Amino acid sequence: MKIYKKAFLPPGFLANGLSCGIKRSGKMDLALFYSCFPAKASCMFTSNTLPAAPILVNKLHLGSGKEFRAIIANSGNANCFTGKKGIQDAKATAKDLSRALQIKPGEVLVASTGIIGRQLKLKNIIAAVPKLVEGLSGQGINKAKLAILTTDNLAKEVTVRFKINQKTVTMCGIAKGAGMIAPDLATMLAFVFTDANITQKALDKALNLAVNASFNCVTVDGCMSTNDSVMLLANQAAGNTLIDTASHFNLFAAALKTLCLELAKMLVRDAEGATKFIRIEVDKAKTTIEARRIALNIANSNLFKTAVFGANPNFGRIVAAVGASGVAVKEKDLKVHLSPLSGKDVSVNVSVGRGRCSAVVYTSDLTPEYVKINAEYS
Amino acid sequence: MKIYKKAFLPPGFLANGLSCGIKRSGKMDLALFYSCFPAKASCMFTSNTLPAAPILVNKLHLGSGKEFRAIIANSGNANCFTGKKGIQDAKATAKDLSRALQIKPGEVLVASTGIIGRQLKLKNIIAAVPKLVEGLSGQGINKAKLAILTTDNLAKEVTVRFKINQKTVTMCGIAKGAGMIAPDLATMLAFVFTDANITQKALDKALNLAVNASFNCVTVDGCMSTNDSVMLLANQAAGNTLIDTASHFNLFAAALKTLCLELAKMLVRDAEGATKFIRIEVDKAKTTIEARRIALNIANSNLFKTAVFGANPNFGRIVAAVGASGVAVKEKDLKVHLSPLSGKDVSVNVSVGRGRCSAVVYTSDLTPEYVKINAEYS
Repeated sequence: MKIYKKAFLPPGFLANGLSCGIKRSGKMDLALFYSCFPAKASCMFTSNTLPAAPILVNKLHLGSGKEFRAIIANSGNANCFTGKKGIQDAKATAKDLSRALQIKPGEVLVASTGIIGRQLKLKNIIAAVPKLVEGLSGQGINKAKLAILTTDNLAKEVTVRFKINQKTVTMCGIAKGAGMIAPDLATMLAFVFTDANITQKALDKALNLAVNASFNCVTVDGCMSTNDSVMLLANQAAGNTLIDTASHFNLFAAALKTLCLELAKMLVRDAEGATKFIRIEVDKAKTTIEARRIALNIANSNLFKTAVFGANPNFGRIVAAVGASGVAVKEKDLKVHLSPLSGKDVSVNVSVGRGRCSAVVYTSDLTPEYVKINAEYS
Repeated sequence: MKIYKKAFLPPGFLANGLSCGIKRSGKMDLALFYSCFPAKASCMFTSNTLPAAPILVNKLHLGSGKEFRAIIANSGNANCFTGKKGIQDAKATAKDLSRALQIKPGEVLVASTGIIGRQLKLKNIIAAVPKLVEGLSGQGINKAKLAILTTDNLAKEVTVRFKINQKTVTMCGIAKGAGMIAPDLATMLAFVFTDANITQKALDKALNLAVNASFNCVTVDGCMSTNDSVMLLANQAAGNTLIDTASHFNLFAAALKTLCLELAKMLVRDAEGATKFIRIEVDKAKTTIEARRIALNIANSNLFKTAVFGANPNFGRIVAAVGASGVAVKEKDLKVHLSPLSGKDVSVNVSVGRGRCSAVVYTSDLTPEYVKINAEYS
């Protein structure tokens, strides 16, 4: 498996990005991803009980369709808490794009990210669609990866390549997200494109495993978004022997997990105002679930996060967070190891002496800059 | 019922405070509360699974004793994550004080607050006990209320007076706490003294009701401490007709709730770095529990709290927090009202259209100053 920290679309995929005037800054805010061949889709969405309109529309499309050709994503507006109008707008976007691409509306997936509670500028999107379609290209991913960003400082992009019976399979992922990041999912959009030839069942299973081991292991501020989506398209252009849950599955699943974990770590490194990247490992727990609960309690403790920002090795706050998790750790069994806090990368190891299970969670420090960014953002 | 925002100890109670050298700043760090008559005690402690040593020792004393005479509390050191030595030190403190006061060790309760993971300076405490006892007085509450503080800017103090069959009953409470405040309990110490003549059962019931309606409704940073304690002593000096769960109970319970709620609100107003006091009310929920869950999700959202700091009326973050609570609120039923954000007091009203239950939670904004205080504290 080869890993590149750059987006290279697999054969048969095209993309584009441009500014249609949603963002007042004039930055790019509309991205299009297109598969020249019918592609299978697998998606995971936020568990927030007030999901954004595009998520509701995607669930309709995924429920009835088997093949997909395009994803259109805007930034600057979440199209959430926008009522019936929001759903109509998401559907109208899909319909208009399908006309321009000469495909069916149900073959389009939609995504939005940005401010919640404002109506989408549908007219701007529709006016931009012809230009967006016209400019589609393999290199267009370099525009699309920027057009999905909001408070991000950097694009997040990874490509993984591996072989199945001499055929090269490519997997390319981009993501956005810098705040409002909590597991289930991390708050973000991620789009992954692969030319693998794979069954729907294997695709779904691999995505589920990969997301649980990556985006669901990162937290920035414990806030869960209304728009979180991971969307994966597979267009089988690689011509590899079919991957199913029994054959070649582990190779594909490992590649997808690696790609998602790289993207997830990039989200944390670019977290709003963050100065440090923190890896928290909890060992010797009775179950993976309790290990994860303890790790997340530490990761979401503002007191722990501010201490790391201040390079202040405050073990007490880790102890308090472990105890606050509700897991009955005995004081004599609790071991806490903290790496030096002077560098940019910090690791915390907590051993709780209850069993053999472990979990890893990634987070960032909490800084005055985080407060500033979020006090001003609207 | 009369409410005074000042501590006036009831007859039969004395207090004192001094500096014994635990705090490097030289500020007062040791407080003593003494009842001239045997008093009933009712206490509530943190549900953190790694509680501090004094809590473990108090549970022993409360389990075996029926009458109590004194509480000794230090600030600057939490005596938590200090192993067997910590427990020995808490016991030694009680024993030494009991000798000086000529009472039994089991009649003493102990409390600590401050840094976690460092051994107590037991010698300093023991050396200070004679002076602490010698200086006991009714006015000493004004020293004691300062000696329990850590990052607090202000002492928190309330007195409530009411009559039962012409006899005046006094209830005096002081508290400390400015950060690491989450419900169950809020992170804090609170000491309440009353001269009421009341049964143990009524005392326990009233404290439980009062704490659930006050300290368990405030949150600053969602962090749960290892040392939270509310301790209530009742010495029956008022000579009122006996209060039990059937007679005069409501009057006593209402007074205690008022006192605890006043103290709880003072904790939030003095929250680390806070510039705003936020009241969050959730109405039309199916159950009180779900109303509370939604209110706490909003109150603990860093994104919401930074938006309030920035006087940025970002409804979207409230919507996202409601949805993140897991309660299945329908978008069309959700109504959010936010008071103007320019003043010091902010109120949020959220109506979820699911039923008839409601809950209120108090919190503060999240500011760069909070980060600064907690980055540097150790």
